[in-house]
Amino acid sequence: MSVHYLFCAGRFIPTDHTIEVKNPHSGDLVSTTYLAGKQELEEAIDKAVKVREDLKNLPSHKRYRILKDIADKLEENKEQFALLIAKEAAKPFKYALSETNRAIQTFTVAAEEAKRLPKEYMSLDWTPAGENKEGIVKYFPVGPVAAISPFNFPLNLAVHKLAPAIASGCPVVLKPATRTPLATLELSKIIAQTDLPAGAVSVLPMNRETGNMLVTDERFKLLTFTGSPSVGWKMKQSAGKKKVLLELGGNAGVIVTESADINKAVDRCVVGGFAYAGQVCIHTQRIYVHEEVFEEFSKRFIEKVEALRLGPPEEQNTDITSMIDESNAKRVEEWVQESLDSGAKILAGGERHGAYYKPTVLTNTKSSMKVCSLEVFGPVVTLEKYSEFENAVKELNNSRYGLQAGVFTDSIYEMNYSLNQIDVGGVIINDVPTFRVDHMPYGGVKDSGMGREGIKYAIAEMMEPKILVKNTY
Amino acid sequence: MSVHYLFCAGRFIPTDHTIEVKNPHSGDLVSTTYLAGKQELEEAIDKAVKVREDLKNLPSHKRYRILKDIADKLEENKEQFALLIAKEAAKPFKYALSETNRAIQTFTVAAEEAKRLPKEYMSLDWTPAGENKEGIVKYFPVGPVAAISPFNFPLNLAVHKLAPAIASGCPVVLKPATRTPLATLELSKIIAQTDLPAGAVSVLPMNRETGNMLVTDERFKLLTFTGSPSVGWKMKQSAGKKKVLLELGGNAGVIVTESADINKAVDRCVVGGFAYAGQVCIHTQRIYVHEEVFEEFSKRFIEKVEALRLGPPEEQNTDITSMIDESNAKRVEEWVQESLDSGAKILAGGERHGAYYKPTVLTNTKSSMKVCSLEVFGPVVTLEKYSEFENAVKELNNSRYGLQAGVFTDSIYEMNYSLNQIDVGGVIINDVPTFRVDHMPYGGVKDSGMGREGIKYAIAEMMEPKILVKNTY
Amino acid sequence: MSVHYLFCAGRFIPTDHTIEVKNPHSGDLVSTTYLAGKQELEEAIDKAVKVREDLKNLPSHKRYRILKDIADKLEENKEQFALLIAKEAAKPFKYALSETNRAIQTFTVAAEEAKRLPKEYMSLDWTPAGENKEGIVKYFPVGPVAAISPFNFPLNLAVHKLAPAIASGCPVVLKPATRTPLATLELSKIIAQTDLPAGAVSVLPMNRETGNMLVTDERFKLLTFTGSPSVGWKMKQSAGKKKVLLELGGNAGVIVTESADINKAVDRCVVGGFAYAGQVCIHTQRIYVHEEVFEEFSKRFIEKVEALRLGPPEEQNTDITSMIDESNAKRVEEWVQESLDSGAKILAGGERHGAYYKPTVLTNTKSSMKVCSLEVFGPVVTLEKYSEFENAVKELNNSRYGLQAGVFTDSIYEMNYSLNQIDVGGVIINDVPTFRVDHMPYGGVKDSGMGREGIKYAIAEMMEPKILVKNTY
Amino acid sequence: MSVHYLFCAGRFIPTDHTIEVKNPHSGDLVSTTYLAGKQELEEAIDKAVKVREDLKNLPSHKRYRILKDIADKLEENKEQFALLIAKEAAKPFKYALSETNRAIQTFTVAAEEAKRLPKEYMSLDWTPAGENKEGIVKYFPVGPVAAISPFNFPLNLAVHKLAPAIASGCPVVLKPATRTPLATLELSKIIAQTDLPAGAVSVLPMNRETGNMLVTDERFKLLTFTGSPSVGWKMKQSAGKKKVLLELGGNAGVIVTESADINKAVDRCVVGGFAYAGQVCIHTQRIYVHEEVFEEFSKRFIEKVEALRLGPPEEQNTDITSMIDESNAKRVEEWVQESLDSGAKILAGGERHGAYYKPTVLTNTKSSMKVCSLEVFGPVVTLEKYSEFENAVKELNNSRYGLQAGVFTDSIYEMNYSLNQIDVGGVIINDVPTFRVDHMPYGGVKDSGMGREGIKYAIAEMMEPKILVKNTY
Repeated sequence: MSVHYLFCAGRFIPTDHTIEVKNPHSGDLVSTTYLAGKQELEEAIDKAVKVREDLKNLPSHKRYRILKDIADKLEENKEQFALLIAKEAAKPFKYALSETNRAIQTFTVAAEEAKRLPKEYMSLDWTPAGENKEGIVKYFPVGPVAAISPFNFPLNLAVHKLAPAIASGCPVVLKPATRTPLATLELSKIIAQTDLPAGAVSVLPMNRETGNMLVTDERFKLLTFTGSPSVGWKMKQSAGKKKVLLELGGNAGVIVTESADINKAVDRCVVGGFAYAGQVCIHTQRIYVHEEVFEEFSKRFIEKVEALRLGPPEEQNTDITSMIDESNAKRVEEWVQESLDSGAKILAGGERHGAYYKPTVLTNTKSSMKVCSLEVFGPVVTLEKYSEFENAVKELNNSRYGLQAGVFTDSIYEMNYSLNQIDVGGVIINDVPTFRVDHMPYGGVKDSGMGREGIKYAIAEMMEPKILVKNTY
Repeated sequence: MSVHYLFCAGRFIPTDHTIEVKNPHSGDLVSTTYLAGKQELEEAIDKAVKVREDLKNLPSHKRYRILKDIADKLEENKEQFALLIAKEAAKPFKYALSETNRAIQTFTVAAEEAKRLPKEYMSLDWTPAGENKEGIVKYFPVGPVAAISPFNFPLNLAVHKLAPAIASGCPVVLKPATRTPLATLELSKIIAQTDLPAGAVSVLPMNRETGNMLVTDERFKLLTFTGSPSVGWKMKQSAGKKKVLLELGGNAGVIVTESADINKAVDRCVVGGFAYAGQVCIHTQRIYVHEEVFEEFSKRFIEKVEALRLGPPEEQNTDITSMIDESNAKRVEEWVQESLDSGAKILAGGERHGAYYKPTVLTNTKSSMKVCSLEVFGPVVTLEKYSEFENAVKELNNSRYGLQAGVFTDSIYEMNYSLNQIDVGGVIINDVPTFRVDHMPYGGVKDSGMGREGIKYAIAEMMEPKILVKNTY
Repeated sequence: MSVHYLFCAGRFIPTDHTIEVKNPHSGDLVSTTYLAGKQELEEAIDKAVKVREDLKNLPSHKRYRILKDIADKLEENKEQFALLIAKEAAKPFKYALSETNRAIQTFTVAAEEAKRLPKEYMSLDWTPAGENKEGIVKYFPVGPVAAISPFNFPLNLAVHKLAPAIASGCPVVLKPATRTPLATLELSKIIAQTDLPAGAVSVLPMNRETGNMLVTDERFKLLTFTGSPSVGWKMKQSAGKKKVLLELGGNAGVIVTESADINKAVDRCVVGGFAYAGQVCIHTQRIYVHEEVFEEFSKRFIEKVEALRLGPPEEQNTDITSMIDESNAKRVEEWVQESLDSGAKILAGGERHGAYYKPTVLTNTKSSMKVCSLEVFGPVVTLEKYSEFENAVKELNNSRYGLQAGVFTDSIYEMNYSLNQIDVGGVIINDVPTFRVDHMPYGGVKDSGMGREGIKYAIAEMMEPKILVKNTY
Repeated sequence: MSVHYLFCAGRFIPTDHTIEVKNPHSGDLVSTTYLAGKQELEEAIDKAVKVREDLKNLPSHKRYRILKDIADKLEENKEQFALLIAKEAAKPFKYALSETNRAIQTFTVAAEEAKRLPKEYMSLDWTPAGENKEGIVKYFPVGPVAAISPFNFPLNLAVHKLAPAIASGCPVVLKPATRTPLATLELSKIIAQTDLPAGAVSVLPMNRETGNMLVTDERFKLLTFTGSPSVGWKMKQSAGKKKVLLELGGNAGVIVTESADINKAVDRCVVGGFAYAGQVCIHTQRIYVHEEVFEEFSKRFIEKVEALRLGPPEEQNTDITSMIDESNAKRVEEWVQESLDSGAKILAGGERHGAYYKPTVLTNTKSSMKVCSLEVFGPVVTLEKYSEFENAVKELNNSRYGLQAGVFTDSIYEMNYSLNQIDVGGVIINDVPTFRVDHMPYGGVKDSGMGREGIKYAIAEMMEPKILVKNTY
């Protein structure tokens, strides 16, 4: 029977509180692990504080080596990691493998960025007061980092916190999602074999009450949270003096214009809308298509959506599986029903079987419906027609959220207008809002979060500048 | 009789609540002004929100022109501004003039930086997923800024919020200190004559209750506060979703090593310790001198401290005047007494006359005394001997605060050690911690604040990145 | 009678060799000046070498002040400068004024960049060999600069050498065009009044033989030349050990696609093709219009070309005047005739009157004709039809030159294709190749030159990096 | 019998002209290889031109993969490479291994930099003329590169040309030193197995006459040469329109001050002075020691120099071997004799046995002696006393060369003075001038060269900026 111990300040330990992690698709037990209590958390924090100075002084070639070693070991074992993710998260294998590859890339880039930490050198003699003086700005690790990662990318979204922490020299205590903690705990075994000092990384599944200490304990100098908006914004208020980085969700939209490559747009929207059953922060939730090409787009899109292969997550050719649990599927069902009650029409899907919700396309929706205005986090997409580009942008912006947006177009005007006017963290031209590569700045505006991840950007958040003002003669 | 109206969304208006601003040194009335109420504040916020898009779209040559025009007008009127500051803040004229010159420089640099807003361009094809794509990161103004500035640099510390806001394209509502609002209101007249759209800047003295809306109102996207640590950290907790920039105080220290130029060290420490009666965030509060040079330093230092000229702030050769009010002078008196009761010795000063507290040097202090551990914000300096450099650094770090530190030395080892080990935002080699030029990154760690000002840095805080991902072929 | 002395190492001096500078349009004498001989040049070089260390050590606030003072004085006298340029170069007043405004901007930006000279700070511990070491890269002035500027922008193209030299701290000896030396000599009077040390700038009209010492003398560390390709490339071969920066000409082209704003394209092409009678390095010489919009473009373009107002350069509403001399007008006449003999057709113009050549539009040209393949440097434009965008780009590239190109389009594809495939230093979307603002990187590939100007870029060429490798503990 | 074929445009081929490469220490044959003739060179150039577009379009993940694969294969075979270098160049094994490790690092860093090619994004609306426009500066490969590398670092100094060329997307034809071509040809076998298109790299030993085509052929857009000053500067004059990068030699010096760590200074100076028998561009040739520590330094230094172990290069504990050939050893012998004839004294060494020249220390030298003023490129070091730091710097600068300099000191003043006043490309504090890590900017001033290598810097030289000016609305 498989067991995953906690990774607490360098030691692999059990506790009295076990968790059984089950495959959400099949219900099979994947592995047993544990909940950390206050004692384990206290130990992790204590060691984090103690190892702080050691990490600060690690030369960059050692940081590089540690991160590159992790990437290399992940590469060697990537099929196993993908399978573990597939099982614990009910994520189709091909997407689980892609996530693993991205985690490898995240560690690789972090290794490289560890050698390129921010640094500045400036003249200060802009006034007589600064004559014969210059400034050297060195960035130092901010200190212990509290990290909380979500269930949907059990590996890579945790890695987006661990890798920058190691690169920048910050100790980190990570709380993975209690439903999908296995990939991160498996990763801990790799981390434990590197030269990283014990205590630099702890991975502790916790219940919410214990986890709250991550938010409030003043020994942490930064809180980095990826998860739901309501939880995130509440954390900001109780975070005390620490810095806060929030990567929250949204209801991302895409515009398909008349100058778009329709085949490409259809293919990408199917992936953006239904990969991992839409349980993705930058899930393509709302599609606006220019009236001239609406029919063509709609027809092809529905065909492809209906052709998506349901299957067990472990299989190579599965496109879609159950959602993370039945309660979420029920929630989606209710939201869809609410939209239908208010006049929406179903173009595809609309059925639930246990935790499985069939890929669903709605039209005739209104922006006030939950399927439009809230984060659906499920396999539901709305498809609407527009005639003026500027109005489509207005619709896109008609949201509390602002994570990413996509625009399929060949028009420079529309590209510029989108960059200037769409209120999001990222505007993706000729691809879905679901597009992300791991080194790009990633994060939202409005209720979608604050701060940016993307290795270099996460590293910058985890460091504090200190200027050395020195004489030059 | 001089009157200063509020500057509310482009209009100069009175309210029902007048304030009489008096010269803290002489008690003479300087001018009458007004307290803004909720109605004025609401108008200012409303206009700020409305003017947001206009400001975002201002081309950089117009932002430059506006900021440069302000700098030029300030230059033309700098003697009057210096006199006004001297009177409202009881700041010796030479320091008031220096502050005015710095405000001119702050606007000048902001004009230049308006043309150099942050921008990034990056390849995204680091993996096959990003092939044929690249990223352009444009920074947009974050939105309306709530700004609160302190009494001690009535002009330049407000300008450190106004100038970056104008440069970055953010509307700003500023609450100046109610004791010293005149210089900023006078500045408003200059601002009103530029091409800056009405509503971009409001300057509203307020009582604390009204002012609290600046902290809590969600229409503001950023709160920038310069003031006392206790107030600042509380604000962070009630700031909601907005970003928070805190420039708080400290108990800055300096180390004078055996390789220092003692004459220079003495001269600079007298200025750092007693300029504006120590009412400076980076006031040189604690001096540690190597035992080999302690006697020499101490003797010359006391001589120079005792030679400081008390006088009315308006006079050119005044070195020191009354503090901002008698209650602060009394607080300083009590803290000194507490230190004497616990074994400290007075080397100079130690007397109070109304709001005037004589330049005071203490020795034999302990780090637990208030004069060491808290921000004295008055004309008091502690002077202690050390034998090991590393211990002197440990003493410096023995503080809740971490703003800046100074080290007089010719040793590369000591310079490097200081940069690596002193926990502050700035380490000044061969000058006092009180050193600041306006374009350098400025801000504290630990309880001294979060974020950095210094035009370019404040601008970065006031902007939000948005990545445009586009195809390259 | 007006006289302009040489500006030789801080002194204004005459020599035995006078030059009479005449208005090329009217033949009227504008002013008398002098040719420098070897003796004057030797004095200028000698002082340049001696002042080198002083300039290197000028703090940035002084460099800023000097450059800003020059900009301010130019601003005060800009009408006079424009008039002088109009007269000596036969440049229509509005263009002469625009050139003067640009020179003011060049000095202004140089003032700002003097505070932002290149600087780097890097970690070196990427391998164990670099452990505990870091690098600081400071840029130092390369040393005396030899500068040669052309007749067509007598002020601003000289300023593009003088201003970066002052900003970077390099002494400079400038040889202005002997036909148009007055604006630069007039500028010298302003320079002489600043705090710039004597010898930092010399302005010496010379004959070619004397001027050749600028190329060969090894005391100069950099040669910066703006002028004709044949002369420039020869200089490179005899320049010895010095660095060489060449800003040469070209036969710039523009593509007007079917998605262009035709009115805008026409207006800009008239300016790009005929401003200053085409005597501009980035003169719009070749226009390729998509067949769908060719008729419309052609009709409107010819109308506007024929409406250009001939007149004396001093007048405000003159659009076009004589060329710099009759021999150039005759050369243009011959080239046009050669094209006609080989099958080209005239759509407008085609007449010469003395030094005046009427604005001329040709079609049915072949790439082998001189009017296509060489730099026409006169008021002649070719106008051709294309059907495939990629072929239009191929035609553009069918040239020895590669300075800039323009593309009027709303297509992202065409924009990307242009950036990737047009072999030039600058691709201008929705404007003519003649577009230049003074701080952008400017320079050509292929036979159009090497290196880049544009203040920051020219400064970088004029500086040499020196790395300080130091220990960090 | 070992044979190394030429690597010509993707094929391994012999020619009619064989070269026997012998171990300079033992005279044993190491391997046989070939001289390329004009035909092979023509083929290489022709393919280089043809593959240019393919290389330009390689996405960065492929460039990364190619470079990383080379680094990994080198890592796997590093002992063999080190042995080959040891034999062909008579380089002690430990230094040959270190060179191989550095070559691995050079490829690794180039892989990373291939993803970080230079890029700029700038606002252009600094004047009304640029309103609604912005600039994107993309860097493109300059085109075919001609590269010439020297005998002394047969692998890594060639890699400093190959790796940046691959990273930047430039085809490259490399002429390795004909005496030591084997390591580079062995490397070619690794390169040939990667996905790099055939023709991207050619490695062709050539005689000087054929090699001269690398300098003159206009299809090459850049010449990068590492070798002797006299050859390099001549090349610059016949290089036509191409860019030229020269990495030449020098007579590097070091200053040991009274505040230095003497033990460390001695150890590093022994390595800097005698590693690879001083046949290193940044060989520590001149040592200046403060009079207070001269005796101590001198005594320990001589002891350590005399303890250097002579032996065959293949052995692990050999410190020193024969020079590259007897004629060079004789040259060194003559120069030492010349110095003795003029009053110099020998403190150690001074004997020659065939190609072996014993580690030699001279004192009482004068700056006019060849051992001081020229590049000795052999195991000879001069050791002199100084009393004023500024004079020691003056002595250091008393040279035609300016590559690097070392200063052992703990004084901030001396560090600053050195950076400001020593005329070199690199000032190394607390280490010898021989210090180099592969990613730092490296190159000389005065007669020591022009341009900089160091991967990122070499890449920048190999690329040409192209600005895209586009509208923003």
